[in-house]
Amino acid sequence: MKSPITIAIDAMGGDDSPGKVIEGISLHSQDSDNIIYNIFGKQEIVNPLIEKHQIANAKYNLIHTDNSVKGDDTALSAAKRGKDTSLWLALESLKKNESDAMVSAGNTGALFLISKLNLKMIDNIDKPALSALWPSKKGMNIVLDLGANIDCNSKNLIDFSIMGSALHKALFETEKPKVALLNIGSEEIKGNAMIKDTYKLLINKEYPLFDFKGYIEGNQIMDGEVNVIVADGFTGNIALKTAEGTSNFIISELKKALGSSMIGKFSSLINFKNLKNFKNKLDPRLYNGAILLGLNKPVIKSHGSTDSIGFANSLKVCEQTIRGKLIDQIKENLC
Amino acid sequence: MKSPITIAIDAMGGDDSPGKVIEGISLHSQDSDNIIYNIFGKQEIVNPLIEKHQIANAKYNLIHTDNSVKGDDTALSAAKRGKDTSLWLALESLKKNESDAMVSAGNTGALFLISKLNLKMIDNIDKPALSALWPSKKGMNIVLDLGANIDCNSKNLIDFSIMGSALHKALFETEKPKVALLNIGSEEIKGNAMIKDTYKLLINKEYPLFDFKGYIEGNQIMDGEVNVIVADGFTGNIALKTAEGTSNFIISELKKALGSSMIGKFSSLINFKNLKNFKNKLDPRLYNGAILLGLNKPVIKSHGSTDSIGFANSLKVCEQTIRGKLIDQIKENLC
Repeated sequence: MKSPITIAIDAMGGDDSPGKVIEGISLHSQDSDNIIYNIFGKQEIVNPLIEKHQIANAKYNLIHTDNSVKGDDTALSAAKRGKDTSLWLALESLKKNESDAMVSAGNTGALFLISKLNLKMIDNIDKPALSALWPSKKGMNIVLDLGANIDCNSKNLIDFSIMGSALHKALFETEKPKVALLNIGSEEIKGNAMIKDTYKLLINKEYPLFDFKGYIEGNQIMDGEVNVIVADGFTGNIALKTAEGTSNFIISELKKALGSSMIGKFSSLINFKNLKNFKNKLDPRLYNGAILLGLNKPVIKSHGSTDSIGFANSLKVCEQTIRGKLIDQIKENLC
Repeated sequence: MKSPITIAIDAMGGDDSPGKVIEGISLHSQDSDNIIYNIFGKQEIVNPLIEKHQIANAKYNLIHTDNSVKGDDTALSAAKRGKDTSLWLALESLKKNESDAMVSAGNTGALFLISKLNLKMIDNIDKPALSALWPSKKGMNIVLDLGANIDCNSKNLIDFSIMGSALHKALFETEKPKVALLNIGSEEIKGNAMIKDTYKLLINKEYPLFDFKGYIEGNQIMDGEVNVIVADGFTGNIALKTAEGTSNFIISELKKALGSSMIGKFSSLINFKNLKNFKNKLDPRLYNGAILLGLNKPVIKSHGSTDSIGFANSLKVCEQTIRGKLIDQIKENLC
């Protein structure tokens, strides 16, 4: 039997919550072992959903609060007035060591700020980073930072390399993750001064946790030749959002093309299973869960618009970061 | 009858050249009116191709040279030893006013440097920018800079807005192009200091050539709500390459899914026309031709690996920039 772990859940954040959150917990609990869910939210709404989805009493604690952070609250206003919101209380339970990791599908800015207010930074990390899973030809990559830090220095990017590698190892049991810096050319001379300095620092030192593989360009992110792709938050966010937009554009064009005639519809029906396999492989719910790295407990941001399957996957990410000893890995490998 | 224009062509640059170049000229000449092609390249190889593709004598001049810039030459070495290469001579013909625009499928760095050595910058433009066509839900966008300038200031981005708008107008006869800055959020407070300064300068002044629409994020590039997307060269290159990689990834996954069973193959065959329409819409040959903006003549970079159809499209871009009076538009609208 696996050792017991406790996940704190903001039940009220995100679209269609708490419905999808509770259903997501139910889905996750069927596959997992020895997990307690600390559910923070409004009792009158959450309780009937727990009953509906038949989550066993022994598996959860419901911590009632009337308040929640809204999607359009600014991070600052949420932090100021929000000490009794489901998001705040869930994070506070990490601080009090009542939970091992926390997940919310709510307001990203508020989650970020309130995490920093409640949790300690890992010693020697200057800036927390937002990381996410990114599908590739050979599995899943980690890309970071995705927007938490617009301006970064070389020390930050090296920290991101360590934290991203620890995460890849925790999630996928990779022996020694391969790390690359996102740049605009593969030659040593390309890029801005900060990236070139980081390259020199990474190439000239042995890191026990990862192998540094130099630069990659945007078109190589999905090749799967490296496992962890490191960038400042501005660059990482541009890459993430551009990939998202390109993917949406192509899929909508494909749908238009296949649905534009009777023959198209008929043959797509024949091809249903193959197209479904294709869709499944690209399903964003499979890699739902951005991970805030650098704090002394794992904090996971589920996509606000995901459904119960996506939310269950972000719970799986929580579980893997704890079982894979993410925080210990980071601490042991810091320079 | 349209007024006569002359296009200088480096016949030797790029993969499978001069074969695809001469075939591309032949394709373009069938659709166009009153164009003279100044073809720079090795007579013994080029001449038989011209005969094979039956380009009429009156339509071209062949300027012989034995030398050409190689794909792996550094820009500097190409510029130093290259005064008799097809690339250099083609650009020199712009300087001598013997041609109106120039196109090459060869070495990008060399094209960029030798263009700057031979041509004058437009008065008041500090940095030339590399721009390209980018498909969207509503047609074609212009995105710039794509990597010519890693570090930019606000003046540069405003110049890019003007040059990109002039290009969109020249290519698509847009009345008043809509311009946006590529950023990591749509709120005014997001982004780095340089972008925020540029925003203020653009929002507080009336520009007769374009309407400024604020920020867009990477996932909105292909929505078609704006026509011109402006970024520094580092950010623009990351976006371009990431979109390219995402597109390749999705198409290869789709091919795998559809080709993985007999039913898949059979039904894809039925669906051939629809899938072909889909492929055509995303065909990178349709938007082949990156345009170097800021010099006093249009210089077009065809993709090195494109084929004759792609090369013909880059000739079309040449023609449209001249007929649309791109350079005059830029000059008239500079601040």
